[in-house]
Amino acid sequence: MKASIRKIAVLTSVAAALASALAAAAVKPETAIHYRQSVYTMIGWNFAPMVAMIKDKTPWDSAEFAKHADRIASLTPQLLEGFPEGSDKGAETEAKPEIWQNMDDFKSKMSDLVRETKALSDVAKAGDEAKTREQFKKTAGACKSCHDKYRSEE
Amino acid sequence: MKASIRKIAVLTSVAAALASALAAAAVKPETAIHYRQSVYTMIGWNFAPMVAMIKDKTPWDSAEFAKHADRIASLTPQLLEGFPEGSDKGAETEAKPEIWQNMDDFKSKMSDLVRETKALSDVAKAGDEAKTREQFKKTAGACKSCHDKYRSEE
Repeated sequence: MKASIRKIAVLTSVAAALASALAAAAVKPETAIHYRQSVYTMIGWNFAPMVAMIKDKTPWDSAEFAKHADRIASLTPQLLEGFPEGSDKGAETEAKPEIWQNMDDFKSKMSDLVRETKALSDVAKAGDEAKTREQFKKTAGACKSCHDKYRSEE
Repeated sequence: MKASIRKIAVLTSVAAALASALAAAAVKPETAIHYRQSVYTMIGWNFAPMVAMIKDKTPWDSAEFAKHADRIASLTPQLLEGFPEGSDKGAETEAKPEIWQNMDDFKSKMSDLVRETKALSDVAKAGDEAKTREQFKKTAGACKSCHDKYRSEE
Protein backbone atom coordinates (compact mmCIF):
# COMPACT_ATOMS: atom_id res chain seq x y z
CA MET A 1 0.00 0.00 0.00
CA LYS A 2 2.66 2.43 1.07
CA ALA A 3 4.71 1.48 -1.98
CA SER A 4 1.81 2.21 -4.33
CA ILE A 5 1.20 5.56 -2.65
CA ARG A 6 4.86 6.30 -3.21
CA LYS A 7 4.52 5.19 -6.83
CA ILE A 8 1.53 7.47 -7.30
CA ALA A 9 3.44 10.33 -5.69
CA VAL A 10 6.39 9.73 -8.00
CA LEU A 11 4.14 9.50 -11.04
CA THR A 12 2.31 12.67 -10.00
CA SER A 13 5.53 14.61 -9.62
CA VAL A 14 6.81 13.24 -12.95
CA ALA A 15 3.54 14.35 -14.54
CA ALA A 16 3.88 17.76 -12.92
CA ALA A 17 7.45 18.12 -14.16
CA LEU A 18 6.37 17.08 -17.64
CA ALA A 19 3.48 19.51 -17.64
CA SER A 20 5.80 22.33 -16.55
CA ALA A 21 8.30 21.36 -19.24
CA LEU A 22 5.54 21.35 -21.84
CA ALA A 23 4.25 24.70 -20.62
CA ALA A 24 7.78 26.13 -20.85
CA ALA A 25 8.25 24.58 -24.30
CA ALA A 26 5.03 26.25 -25.39
CA VAL A 27 6.66 29.68 -25.05
CA LYS A 28 7.29 31.01 -28.54
CA PRO A 29 10.82 32.23 -29.36
CA GLU A 30 9.51 35.74 -30.10
CA THR A 31 7.78 35.83 -26.71
CA ALA A 32 11.02 34.92 -24.94
CA ILE A 33 12.96 37.48 -27.00
CA HIS A 34 10.43 40.18 -26.21
CA TYR A 35 10.51 39.21 -22.54
CA ARG A 36 14.30 39.31 -22.16
CA GLN A 37 14.48 42.63 -24.02
CA SER A 38 11.95 43.98 -21.53
CA VAL A 39 14.08 42.90 -18.58
CA TYR A 40 17.08 44.66 -20.14
CA THR A 41 14.98 47.77 -20.79
CA MET A 42 13.94 47.88 -17.14
CA ILE A 43 17.55 47.39 -16.06
CA GLY A 44 18.60 50.24 -18.38
CA TRP A 45 15.85 52.52 -17.07
CA ASN A 46 17.15 52.03 -13.53
CA PHE A 47 20.79 52.16 -14.59
CA ALA A 48 20.45 55.63 -16.15
CA PRO A 49 19.90 57.65 -12.93
CA MET A 50 22.72 55.69 -11.26
CA VAL A 51 25.10 56.56 -14.12
CA ALA A 52 24.03 60.22 -13.83
CA MET A 53 25.08 60.18 -10.16
CA ILE A 54 28.29 58.26 -10.85
CA LYS A 55 29.23 60.85 -13.50
CA ASP A 56 28.22 63.72 -11.18
CA LYS A 57 25.57 64.92 -13.58
CA THR A 58 23.02 64.77 -10.79
CA PRO A 59 23.77 65.13 -7.07
CA TRP A 60 24.54 61.95 -5.15
CA ASP A 61 21.40 60.62 -3.49
CA SER A 62 22.08 57.44 -1.52
CA ALA A 63 18.41 56.53 -1.11
CA GLU A 64 17.69 56.97 -4.82
CA PHE A 65 20.80 55.05 -5.78
CA ALA A 66 19.87 52.21 -3.41
CA LYS A 67 16.32 52.09 -4.77
CA HIS A 68 17.52 51.60 -8.34
CA ALA A 69 20.27 49.17 -7.31
CA ASP A 70 17.73 47.09 -5.40
CA ARG A 71 15.44 46.92 -8.44
CA ILE A 72 18.29 45.88 -10.71
CA ALA A 73 19.34 43.20 -8.23
CA SER A 74 15.83 41.75 -8.38
CA LEU A 75 15.71 41.96 -12.20
CA THR A 76 19.01 40.25 -13.06
CA PRO A 77 17.97 36.79 -11.75
CA GLN A 78 14.99 37.00 -14.12
CA LEU A 79 17.10 37.31 -17.28
CA LEU A 80 18.22 33.74 -17.90
CA GLU A 81 14.74 32.30 -18.45
CA GLY A 82 14.46 34.67 -21.42
CA PHE A 83 17.07 32.62 -23.31
CA PRO A 84 15.39 29.23 -23.84
CA GLU A 85 16.76 26.83 -26.45
CA GLY A 86 15.57 27.94 -29.89
CA SER A 87 15.22 31.63 -29.07
CA ASP A 88 18.33 32.62 -31.01
CA LYS A 89 15.93 33.65 -33.74
CA GLY A 90 12.22 34.43 -34.11
CA ALA A 91 12.39 38.21 -33.74
CA GLU A 92 14.99 40.94 -34.00
CA THR A 93 17.57 40.18 -31.33
CA GLU A 94 21.07 41.32 -30.41
CA ALA A 95 21.72 38.00 -28.69
CA LYS A 96 24.43 36.14 -30.58
CA PRO A 97 23.91 32.44 -31.43
CA GLU A 98 27.14 31.81 -29.47
CA ILE A 99 25.03 32.03 -26.30
CA TRP A 100 23.36 28.69 -27.01
CA GLN A 101 26.64 27.15 -28.16
CA ASN A 102 28.29 28.14 -24.86
CA MET A 103 25.36 27.99 -22.48
CA ASP A 104 27.49 27.01 -19.45
CA ASP A 105 29.75 30.02 -19.96
CA PHE A 106 26.73 32.28 -20.54
CA LYS A 107 25.10 31.01 -17.34
CA SER A 108 28.31 31.61 -15.46
CA LYS A 109 28.45 35.21 -16.74
CA MET A 110 24.81 35.66 -15.74
CA SER A 111 25.53 34.41 -12.27
CA ASP A 112 28.47 36.87 -12.03
CA LEU A 113 26.00 39.62 -12.91
CA VAL A 114 23.49 38.45 -10.30
CA ARG A 115 26.24 38.39 -7.66
CA GLU A 116 27.63 41.84 -8.55
CA THR A 117 24.20 43.51 -8.72
CA LYS A 118 23.29 41.98 -5.35
CA ALA A 119 26.58 43.30 -3.92
CA LEU A 120 25.82 46.73 -5.39
CA SER A 121 22.39 46.77 -3.82
CA ASP A 122 23.82 45.73 -0.44
CA VAL A 123 26.60 48.32 -0.46
CA ALA A 124 24.24 51.07 -1.70
CA LYS A 125 21.78 50.26 1.09
CA ALA A 126 24.61 50.66 3.60
CA GLY A 127 24.99 54.22 2.25
CA ASP A 128 28.78 54.42 1.73
CA GLU A 129 29.28 56.49 -1.43
CA ALA A 130 32.94 55.53 -2.03
CA LYS A 131 32.25 51.80 -1.70
CA THR A 132 29.15 52.13 -3.85
CA ARG A 133 31.16 53.81 -6.60
CA GLU A 134 33.74 51.04 -6.37
CA GLN A 135 31.13 48.28 -6.59
CA PHE A 136 29.38 50.08 -9.44
CA LYS A 137 32.53 49.64 -11.53
CA LYS A 138 32.57 45.90 -10.84
CA THR A 139 28.90 45.66 -11.76
CA ALA A 140 29.37 47.56 -15.01
CA GLY A 141 32.28 45.22 -15.70
CA ALA A 142 29.97 42.21 -15.33
CA CYS A 143 27.56 43.77 -17.87
CA LYS A 144 30.39 44.52 -20.29
CA SER A 145 32.02 41.12 -20.04
CA CYS A 146 28.81 39.46 -21.25
CA HIS A 147 27.96 42.12 -23.87
CA ASP A 148 31.45 41.93 -25.39
CA LYS A 149 31.09 38.24 -26.04
CA TYR A 150 27.40 37.63 -26.56
CA ARG A 151 25.74 40.86 -27.74
CA SER A 152 25.93 42.01 -31.32
CA GLU A 153 25.85 45.79 -31.44
CA GLU A 154 25.56 47.49 -34.78
CA MET B 1 25.88 81.15 11.65
CA LYS B 2 23.42 78.35 12.28
CA ALA B 3 20.84 80.16 10.17
CA SER B 4 23.20 80.41 7.21
CA ILE B 5 24.05 76.72 7.51
CA ARG B 6 20.32 76.05 7.45
CA LYS B 7 19.98 78.33 4.41
CA ILE B 8 22.76 76.47 2.62
CA ALA B 9 21.13 73.16 3.50
CA VAL B 10 17.79 74.38 2.14
CA LEU B 11 19.42 75.71 -1.03
CA THR B 12 21.31 72.44 -1.49
CA SER B 13 18.18 70.37 -1.19
CA VAL B 14 16.32 72.71 -3.54
CA ALA B 15 19.19 72.34 -6.02
CA ALA B 16 19.07 68.57 -5.64
CA ALA B 17 15.33 68.49 -6.20
CA LEU B 18 15.73 70.70 -9.26
CA ALA B 19 18.48 68.53 -10.66
CA SER B 20 16.33 65.41 -10.15
CA ALA B 21 13.39 67.13 -11.80
CA LEU B 22 15.57 68.13 -14.74
CA ALA B 23 16.95 64.62 -15.02
CA ALA B 24 13.41 63.21 -15.00
CA ALA B 25 12.29 65.82 -17.54
CA ALA B 26 15.14 64.75 -19.78
CA VAL B 27 13.50 61.35 -20.29
CA LYS B 28 12.11 61.23 -23.83
CA PRO B 29 8.47 60.22 -24.26
CA GLU B 30 9.45 57.21 -26.38
CA THR B 31 11.84 56.06 -23.64
CA ALA B 32 9.07 56.21 -21.04
CA ILE B 33 6.65 54.41 -23.38
CA HIS B 34 9.20 51.70 -24.09
CA TYR B 35 9.91 51.37 -20.37
CA ARG B 36 6.29 51.03 -19.26
CA GLN B 37 5.60 48.50 -22.04
CA SER B 38 8.55 46.51 -20.72
CA VAL B 39 7.11 46.46 -17.21
CA TYR B 40 3.78 45.22 -18.60
CA THR B 41 5.60 42.58 -20.67
CA MET B 42 7.37 41.30 -17.57
CA ILE B 43 4.07 41.27 -15.66
CA GLY B 44 2.46 39.31 -18.52
CA TRP B 45 5.35 36.84 -18.65
CA ASN B 46 4.83 36.07 -14.97
CA PHE B 47 1.05 36.18 -15.22
CA ALA B 48 0.91 33.42 -17.88
CA PRO B 49 2.04 30.48 -15.71
CA MET B 50 -0.29 31.67 -12.93
CA VAL B 51 -3.23 31.72 -15.34
CA ALA B 52 -2.27 28.21 -16.52
CA MET B 53 -2.53 26.98 -12.91
CA ILE B 54 -5.74 28.92 -12.24
CA LYS B 55 -7.31 27.32 -15.34
CA ASP B 56 -5.94 23.87 -14.35
CA LYS B 57 -3.90 23.64 -17.53
CA THR B 58 -0.81 22.94 -15.45
CA PRO B 59 -0.79 21.34 -11.99
CA TRP B 60 -1.01 23.67 -9.00
CA ASP B 61 2.44 24.49 -7.70
CA SER B 62 2.32 26.80 -4.69
CA ALA B 63 6.02 27.65 -4.78
CA GLU B 64 5.94 28.50 -8.48
CA PHE B 65 2.77 30.51 -8.08
CA ALA B 66 4.27 32.42 -5.15
CA LYS B 67 7.47 33.13 -7.11
CA HIS B 68 5.57 34.73 -9.97
CA ALA B 69 3.18 36.59 -7.64
CA ASP B 70 6.15 37.99 -5.72
CA ARG B 71 7.76 39.25 -8.93
CA ILE B 72 4.54 40.89 -10.07
CA ALA B 73 4.13 42.55 -6.69
CA SER B 74 7.57 44.09 -7.08
CA LEU B 75 6.89 45.17 -10.67
CA THR B 76 3.55 46.95 -10.22
CA PRO B 77 4.96 49.81 -8.08
CA GLN B 78 7.38 50.51 -10.95
CA LEU B 79 4.64 51.19 -13.52
CA LEU B 80 3.54 54.71 -12.67
CA GLU B 81 6.88 56.39 -13.42
CA GLY B 82 6.45 55.15 -16.99
CA PHE B 83 3.59 57.61 -17.51
CA PRO B 84 5.24 61.05 -17.22
CA GLU B 85 3.47 64.12 -18.55
CA GLY B 86 3.86 64.27 -22.33
CA SER B 87 4.24 60.53 -22.87
CA ASP B 88 0.74 60.12 -24.33
CA LYS B 89 2.50 60.16 -27.70
CA GLY B 90 6.01 59.67 -29.07
CA ALA B 91 5.78 55.98 -29.94
CA GLU B 92 3.08 53.41 -30.55
CA THR B 93 1.15 53.14 -27.31
CA GLU B 94 -2.12 51.64 -26.09
CA ALA B 95 -2.27 54.17 -23.27
CA LYS B 96 -5.25 56.46 -23.84
CA PRO B 97 -4.79 60.24 -23.50
CA GLU B 98 -7.50 60.07 -20.81
CA ILE B 99 -4.79 58.88 -18.41
CA TRP B 100 -3.18 62.32 -18.28
CA GLN B 101 -6.58 64.04 -18.14
CA ASN B 102 -7.54 61.95 -15.10
CA MET B 103 -4.17 61.40 -13.48
CA ASP B 104 -5.58 61.24 -9.94
CA ASP B 105 -8.00 58.49 -10.93
CA PHE B 106 -5.27 56.67 -12.84
CA LYS B 107 -2.96 56.87 -9.82
CA SER B 108 -5.72 55.55 -7.61
CA LYS B 109 -6.25 52.58 -9.95
CA MET B 110 -2.51 51.96 -9.95
CA SER B 111 -2.45 51.95 -6.19
CA ASP B 112 -5.35 49.45 -6.17
CA LEU B 113 -3.23 47.24 -8.41
CA VAL B 114 -0.19 47.57 -6.14
CA ARG B 115 -2.33 46.65 -3.12
CA GLU B 116 -3.99 43.64 -4.80
CA THR B 117 -0.75 42.25 -6.23
CA LYS B 118 0.90 42.60 -2.81
CA ALA B 119 -2.05 40.77 -1.24
CA LEU B 120 -1.76 38.05 -3.89
CA SER B 121 1.93 37.61 -3.19
CA ASP B 122 1.27 37.41 0.57
CA VAL B 123 -1.53 34.87 0.29
CA ALA B 124 0.41 32.79 -2.27
CA LYS B 125 3.43 32.72 0.04
CA ALA B 126 1.17 31.40 2.82
CA GLY B 127 0.37 28.50 0.46
CA ASP B 128 -3.45 28.34 0.73
CA GLU B 129 -4.67 27.42 -2.76
CA ALA B 130 -8.33 28.39 -2.24
CA LYS B 131 -7.45 31.83 -0.83
CA THR B 132 -4.87 32.33 -3.57
CA ARG B 133 -7.47 31.59 -6.25
CA GLU B 134 -9.85 34.04 -4.57
CA GLN B 135 -7.24 36.80 -4.40
CA PHE B 136 -6.20 36.11 -7.98
CA LYS B 137 -9.70 37.12 -9.11
CA LYS B 138 -9.45 40.41 -7.22
CA THR B 139 -6.05 41.07 -8.75
CA ALA B 140 -7.25 40.34 -12.28
CA GLY B 141 -10.16 42.68 -11.53
CA ALA B 142 -7.72 45.47 -10.67
CA CYS B 143 -5.94 44.93 -14.02
CA LYS B 144 -9.23 44.91 -15.91
CA SER B 145 -10.66 47.98 -14.21
CA CYS B 146 -7.72 50.06 -15.45
CA HIS B 147 -7.51 48.46 -18.91
CA ASP B 148 -11.24 49.01 -19.52
CA LYS B 149 -10.89 52.73 -18.97
CA TYR B 150 -7.37 53.60 -20.02
CA ARG B 151 -6.11 51.03 -22.51
CA SER B 152 -7.07 51.13 -26.14
CA GLU B 153 -7.14 47.60 -27.55
CA GLU B 154 -7.56 47.12 -31.25
